[in-house]
Amino acid sequence: MQKITLLINCPDRKGIVTTITQFILEKQGNIVYLDQHVDREERVFFMRVEAEFDEPDFSLAQFEKQFVDQFEADYQLKYQLYDALHKPRLALFVSKYDHCLYDLLGRNASGELEVEIPLIISNHPDLEIVAKRFDIPFKFIPVTKATKAAAEAEQIRIIRDNKIDLIVLARYMQIVSNDFVSQFKHQIINIHHSFLPAFIGAKPYHAAFERGVKIIGATSHYVTADLDEGPIIEQEIVRVSHVHSVQDFILKGRDLEKVVLARAIKAHIEHKVLVYGNKTVIFA
Amino acid sequence: MQKITLLINCPDRKGIVTTITQFILEKQGNIVYLDQHVDREERVFFMRVEAEFDEPDFSLAQFEKQFVDQFEADYQLKYQLYDALHKPRLALFVSKYDHCLYDLLGRNASGELEVEIPLIISNHPDLEIVAKRFDIPFKFIPVTKATKAAAEAEQIRIIRDNKIDLIVLARYMQIVSNDFVSQFKHQIINIHHSFLPAFIGAKPYHAAFERGVKIIGATSHYVTADLDEGPIIEQEIVRVSHVHSVQDFILKGRDLEKVVLARAIKAHIEHKVLVYGNKTVIFA
Amino acid sequence: MQKITLLINCPDRKGIVTTITQFILEKQGNIVYLDQHVDREERVFFMRVEAEFDEPDFSLAQFEKQFVDQFEADYQLKYQLYDALHKPRLALFVSKYDHCLYDLLGRNASGELEVEIPLIISNHPDLEIVAKRFDIPFKFIPVTKATKAAAEAEQIRIIRDNKIDLIVLARYMQIVSNDFVSQFKHQIINIHHSFLPAFIGAKPYHAAFERGVKIIGATSHYVTADLDEGPIIEQEIVRVSHVHSVQDFILKGRDLEKVVLARAIKAHIEHKVLVYGNKTVIFA
Amino acid sequence: MQKITLLINCPDRKGIVTTITQFILEKQGNIVYLDQHVDREERVFFMRVEAEFDEPDFSLAQFEKQFVDQFEADYQLKYQLYDALHKPRLALFVSKYDHCLYDLLGRNASGELEVEIPLIISNHPDLEIVAKRFDIPFKFIPVTKATKAAAEAEQIRIIRDNKIDLIVLARYMQIVSNDFVSQFKHQIINIHHSFLPAFIGAKPYHAAFERGVKIIGATSHYVTADLDEGPIIEQEIVRVSHVHSVQDFILKGRDLEKVVLARAIKAHIEHKVLVYGNKTVIFA
Repeated sequence: MQKITLLINCPDRKGIVTTITQFILEKQGNIVYLDQHVDREERVFFMRVEAEFDEPDFSLAQFEKQFVDQFEADYQLKYQLYDALHKPRLALFVSKYDHCLYDLLGRNASGELEVEIPLIISNHPDLEIVAKRFDIPFKFIPVTKATKAAAEAEQIRIIRDNKIDLIVLARYMQIVSNDFVSQFKHQIINIHHSFLPAFIGAKPYHAAFERGVKIIGATSHYVTADLDEGPIIEQEIVRVSHVHSVQDFILKGRDLEKVVLARAIKAHIEHKVLVYGNKTVIFA
Repeated sequence: MQKITLLINCPDRKGIVTTITQFILEKQGNIVYLDQHVDREERVFFMRVEAEFDEPDFSLAQFEKQFVDQFEADYQLKYQLYDALHKPRLALFVSKYDHCLYDLLGRNASGELEVEIPLIISNHPDLEIVAKRFDIPFKFIPVTKATKAAAEAEQIRIIRDNKIDLIVLARYMQIVSNDFVSQFKHQIINIHHSFLPAFIGAKPYHAAFERGVKIIGATSHYVTADLDEGPIIEQEIVRVSHVHSVQDFILKGRDLEKVVLARAIKAHIEHKVLVYGNKTVIFA
Repeated sequence: MQKITLLINCPDRKGIVTTITQFILEKQGNIVYLDQHVDREERVFFMRVEAEFDEPDFSLAQFEKQFVDQFEADYQLKYQLYDALHKPRLALFVSKYDHCLYDLLGRNASGELEVEIPLIISNHPDLEIVAKRFDIPFKFIPVTKATKAAAEAEQIRIIRDNKIDLIVLARYMQIVSNDFVSQFKHQIINIHHSFLPAFIGAKPYHAAFERGVKIIGATSHYVTADLDEGPIIEQEIVRVSHVHSVQDFILKGRDLEKVVLARAIKAHIEHKVLVYGNKTVIFA
Repeated sequence: MQKITLLINCPDRKGIVTTITQFILEKQGNIVYLDQHVDREERVFFMRVEAEFDEPDFSLAQFEKQFVDQFEADYQLKYQLYDALHKPRLALFVSKYDHCLYDLLGRNASGELEVEIPLIISNHPDLEIVAKRFDIPFKFIPVTKATKAAAEAEQIRIIRDNKIDLIVLARYMQIVSNDFVSQFKHQIINIHHSFLPAFIGAKPYHAAFERGVKIIGATSHYVTADLDEGPIIEQEIVRVSHVHSVQDFILKGRDLEKVVLARAIKAHIEHKVLVYGNKTVIFA
């Protein structure tokens, strides 16, 4: 059996659900999931379909070709087509904070995330011990202002070599360059430790404490050229009060960061995230 | 223009989305909303469709007849078909607590709920002043053990006379009889002041306080023959702590009750609730 | 019996709880509530005390004088002393949105807030009908650029005449002048329809929609000279997703605004809010 | 320097805060934290104090003796006195689920929990690999109906040998006997995967799914003789909907379980939990 996940968006028009589901049926596909959404303001149609194909001679490439021929131009349609049975390969970028790293490796060891993690990259050597505990190759690539370009070239090379599908900045304390970002469009997820767009930039917990907010948050988003401005995938919050110090904010925030990052990764690897403009459609 | 909302559920099978959307297209309908869900364990298919028909000679009755002929038997399909432009008519049942009543009348006066409220029924005279403030007829029908059957007969008569679509028990402190319930299947919404199934029955805030919970809740549900056991529509919670007295629980709970009841009513009147077994599918 | 609420803050030092509770005991006071907090970073001590005095000849003025003599200079102490049995008098400022107004008047009619509301002031005539329903004087004071100073003078006069303790901007769509603000320091509460400091200024729901956030919020705060920058009293949030339009954000936000504003008012009138710098200590 | 944490409860009476803070001051203590609470219904006074003693010859034993002499009988006072600088020693009990185990070991490795974990006990051998990753001794003690008494005797022996302060049932899938519980009063914390008191007993996620709830929860509590009935320390919830399967409930619940258990452990080891009757006071 083969299984596909298909994400599409295009200008809305009558009969589109019918036409596409008809196409899949004709290819002997069994639709096991279908979710669609129409943005009424923008008049854009979004759909996510999972379909199974039992025919032994089903060819994903041929399916894609026919799909493109029939719809792409006519419907001004953008699509993403995935082999749903492929196990995504993740590279984790870290620096010195280890809580997201422990959390993701624990989840993966538990079988909660169905991914391969062939690679941890860090600009500091500190977390090699964590990687070792989970038997994952750890690549220490220091980054200074002077070496940044070379370091990123090295990172990119290793990412390519390891056929990485998704780069996770798990509290990686370095800004990645526009050049780097442009090579992995919507393939880099970051966790920012504030409720964006509040407290963009460095030390958001300190800024939140200073402002006297009663709720703090964390935000996972795709990384784009504009720092902390990429499409938001997930957010979560927790209450704080005057009894909490900045240190308490940081501690409470760790749990937010872990959960929000994990949820974003899960949505991404299950191909439930469709980026549109600077926003995301997250299918159920 | 006419607009319909169609809710269906039936055993899942291949091609069902295609077939039904095709049917609507053939009737010159424009699908403006489609949401479907498959319960994989039970293998049941659920769908909600909103469609607009511009043809001046569109007939809802004829549409329904053709739909039934084509699908009901063949697909073992259950359906609800609504004129989406009909303004629902609500009867509010109250006793002495006025917060949900004020809230619903305020929302309606604000234009937030698009309903008619031609009738408030109470087993106590206390809240007539509230009804007067909003110029809504108030019917005082006292209920004692001895008069209960007669009182309910009177209630039913008035409900029928007023062509009521939905009965809202807005902290109505009387148990309605099975006979009453059976006449308005999935047309009676209650607000229970606990996080069901915890604290069924009387004085749930006291029971929650006694148990020492750290979170309290409220639940709106359809009323069935089994007290507090009907299909849940909506729930919400709020944190409490040892500093809160029972009285604090009650005060905090009032806000939960208001919001949860209002959300449930809104989902119901927009035909977004599909009851299946003792559970609900709530479409987006 | 007389009952006082005392709020103090001063540089932290050893023995301060002991000294002040000792003082109250000597005056025959019975402490029924005491909550204290120390900001360890700033080394500031905060305390809230409720005490009852049964002596028939207890004099609040005399208590205050002795308290000041003993502590103010020596401890560099700032204090607020309230007659806890005084019923606060509120002026509600509104424009065209009626949901917070209905909510507050409903709460007050229910006995949930223990306040007097002798005055509703509006720069539009639209909500007079709401005021009438609850038998509350409604004062229509139009505000244009040209008449703003005169209008505010008129507002201030009425506020003084009515011995108002707290001004509530219940979605009042006018910026009040610095001069107005300076006359009622920490006596004006506003509800802002975003999760501050995100989306300061006009049309925050539209901005939130544009940014693609997954959670929206509301914030109540004291009004200061800097728009939307005053000390935050309360915040609350609700989840949103791609299925929600701006209009859905606005509708969901209404419930946040109502609850957050009501909680802030309740904390204020119970003298549980202590402003310190641009932050608040909210006692339990 | 020495630092103590003192928890007390006793019948409420005038002047008690003053008297006890006075006592500490006389012993040259510097109170760095004081939180008190009065249960007005039960008229019980609760207090938590942290105090530092710089005198080189301060003796905790002597302090305790004088404290008892002065207050215990006279105030009908119950107290707990801790050396706040002692690092608590935890034994983790697990079975086959590894998510709470990974989470707690990750937190400890991160320095988030300041505890020693000298011991993991399991009735299954499966999780030895996790213990090894974090270099923690793993003791496999199988439990059958026939061997239960002997197994518990063995567990108790090891717990005593390791001077364990707190036993954490981190999804340990065995009911511990009353005899076992009685030996470690308020020293055993369990995580139950429901919002207690809803869904007591086995398979709560399945029961929640069956009931059609819109929110699921997790609860940490002290273990008592009555299953799932002990004093609640912490609860948290997450929204679910009809799109979620039982498997989704379980996955979402894992994050709740991890966070709720970690919060409860943190509150306990910081001596912020005071059990009173079957409820807890959780100090800030």
